[in-house]
Amino acid sequence: MIESLAAICTGPETPLELAQVLVAPPRSGEVLIEIVSSGLCHTDLTALEGINASTVYPLIPGHEGVGRVVEVGTDVSSLRPGDHVIPLYGPECGTCAMCQSNRTNLCWSIKKTRDMGVMPDGTARFSRNGAVVHHFMGTSTLSRYTVVPEIALAKIRKDAPLDKICLFGCGVTTGVGAAMTHVKHGDKVAVFGLGGIGINIVQGARICGAQQIIGVDINPDKIDLGRYYGMTDFIDASDPSADAVTAIRDLTLGGVDVAFECSGILSVMRQAFESAVPGWGQAVLLGVEPAGSEMQFAPVGVRYGKSIHGSYFGGVKGRSGLAPLIDLFMEGEIELDAQITHRMPLQDVNRGFDLMRKGQSLRSIIDFE
Amino acid sequence: MIESLAAICTGPETPLELAQVLVAPPRSGEVLIEIVSSGLCHTDLTALEGINASTVYPLIPGHEGVGRVVEVGTDVSSLRPGDHVIPLYGPECGTCAMCQSNRTNLCWSIKKTRDMGVMPDGTARFSRNGAVVHHFMGTSTLSRYTVVPEIALAKIRKDAPLDKICLFGCGVTTGVGAAMTHVKHGDKVAVFGLGGIGINIVQGARICGAQQIIGVDINPDKIDLGRYYGMTDFIDASDPSADAVTAIRDLTLGGVDVAFECSGILSVMRQAFESAVPGWGQAVLLGVEPAGSEMQFAPVGVRYGKSIHGSYFGGVKGRSGLAPLIDLFMEGEIELDAQITHRMPLQDVNRGFDLMRKGQSLRSIIDFE
Repeated sequence: MIESLAAICTGPETPLELAQVLVAPPRSGEVLIEIVSSGLCHTDLTALEGINASTVYPLIPGHEGVGRVVEVGTDVSSLRPGDHVIPLYGPECGTCAMCQSNRTNLCWSIKKTRDMGVMPDGTARFSRNGAVVHHFMGTSTLSRYTVVPEIALAKIRKDAPLDKICLFGCGVTTGVGAAMTHVKHGDKVAVFGLGGIGINIVQGARICGAQQIIGVDINPDKIDLGRYYGMTDFIDASDPSADAVTAIRDLTLGGVDVAFECSGILSVMRQAFESAVPGWGQAVLLGVEPAGSEMQFAPVGVRYGKSIHGSYFGGVKGRSGLAPLIDLFMEGEIELDAQITHRMPLQDVNRGFDLMRKGQSLRSIIDFE
Repeated sequence: MIESLAAICTGPETPLELAQVLVAPPRSGEVLIEIVSSGLCHTDLTALEGINASTVYPLIPGHEGVGRVVEVGTDVSSLRPGDHVIPLYGPECGTCAMCQSNRTNLCWSIKKTRDMGVMPDGTARFSRNGAVVHHFMGTSTLSRYTVVPEIALAKIRKDAPLDKICLFGCGVTTGVGAAMTHVKHGDKVAVFGLGGIGINIVQGARICGAQQIIGVDINPDKIDLGRYYGMTDFIDASDPSADAVTAIRDLTLGGVDVAFECSGILSVMRQAFESAVPGWGQAVLLGVEPAGSEMQFAPVGVRYGKSIHGSYFGGVKGRSGLAPLIDLFMEGEIELDAQITHRMPLQDVNRGFDLMRKGQSLRSIIDFE
């Protein structure tokens, strides 16, 4: 057992508690990690707000971190102490039907226990005063020490700066990866919602050679950052007279090749579909809708050649696909600095989430060192 | 002007009238065709029932025909009298953005006038007693003579039997083509609705090497024909306790790679989506929903890797893509005889549609010779 400073969510709508927890040693197939940096992401907020179905309280949030291997359990062969790793909320076991297919990056081998806030053997490694503290998303990176299954750890090059590349644990990979999966050279693209995901879709679309990248957001303050990452046009959706679909059709002479939706708002998902060009336009949904709610669309649109897709972690297989993306960052193709708006120690984590709630931060990073 | 026996729909819910119409000579870019055979297809019925938005009465239905070129207008270079041709409700102009893309088979170059029941110059070639009779779907193959734009005619080999290959004008191409576009060797497939389209999806999926082809229909009489064309499993959706989605998941250990929907019923479209396998399962919608109605689905399904597509004329570019399919028929790969359940002269066309309404025919063919 080792002591670890962690942010603990004891239930919905209460501030995170900073406290020392005990972390049990890694069991078979597990790895003890010392977290160096962790970004704050909107999915953590859903756990804090009590609207995430895969939460068991109390829990330690955080899923966009990076750290060093401290200790490996038995039967761990691919990692050793000192390795730099990014914890993956989507593992890559390498042996299931999904992992053996090139048609998906999903791996559901440990989904059930992950969504119950425990390790694959059904138990948690965190405790406080003798009581269990649950894992969240299988990662719990808002603890100085965390335990993660080997199959949910991507080993990364040691020269990459840990205080930045934590963002590959979620937002950057999700955004840039989704663009790389769906955007072709010369495409016209729309991005609904210019938050941590959307801005990286803009960046990814630029890398893919999109000829036009239209951002749609209710906050015109996003214009400068959007343009910095490659946005060519902006539609201010806060204007009550704004009709984003018509505006996009006008800007593109009929619609975009790919429309990405990052807000999770059902009516915006519909706008994404409607702004896709007949013939081959794709609507790609990344935003998480309110639990149990459904999207509506006119089927004639798909008979006219449109299609509806989703994207999870950018379509990137975590253990095998993350290293090439980090290479792109190290080569200067992917830019991170401009999207890191705040840095703070774990002690200020509640302030970090407040900034997120108020829309005042794009990405806050918690630095443990 | 030449006289032509034609079936005329004077308005919704009235029997077709058999009458002589006058057919004006083909103008620039147009071709006069002598129809030899024409299948009766469900989309014709929507015009007879008044639920097709692209109808102007009186009109001559029919869009699944084949015939011979009688006369070409000026500026027609690719066809000459005597050529065998299949009229296309979806043209291929070859020059628009859609035609120049390999991502769609759609061509909307003359869609507007087609949907108004006239030729691209805005006038009709049919008349009776001095009054205009409108075209339907740009084809009107239930007339002995019809006029069609050159860009909406597929030239076909002369040794193919006209009294059968008329079916490539719609049903066979739509079904077999959709399968060829979406099904990979070894896939598991579900087909909702075993009518003229669905049965050809079954046939196409078998040609593509699907390992499992599950048919779903409310009529168990479809079992024999389904099995003949390659169906491996049948789900009787008329059973009130039937849960097609669960049955398909059980039969396939999780869902199908491709689920085709051919009924146009919104709740069945939803079942198709839900029966697709997480990771990469596709729902492909072919059925035409009631005008203005919308499909609902849970977006989490697309984040879990499913996608929703449509299909129009099987994804086949009409002028360039039909000949290879007819070759497959001539080589014995595509089978037509078993799906032709009735033949009759044009005089019996109302009986043909009655059989369709009652579900007693799979395909009726009107023979003009």
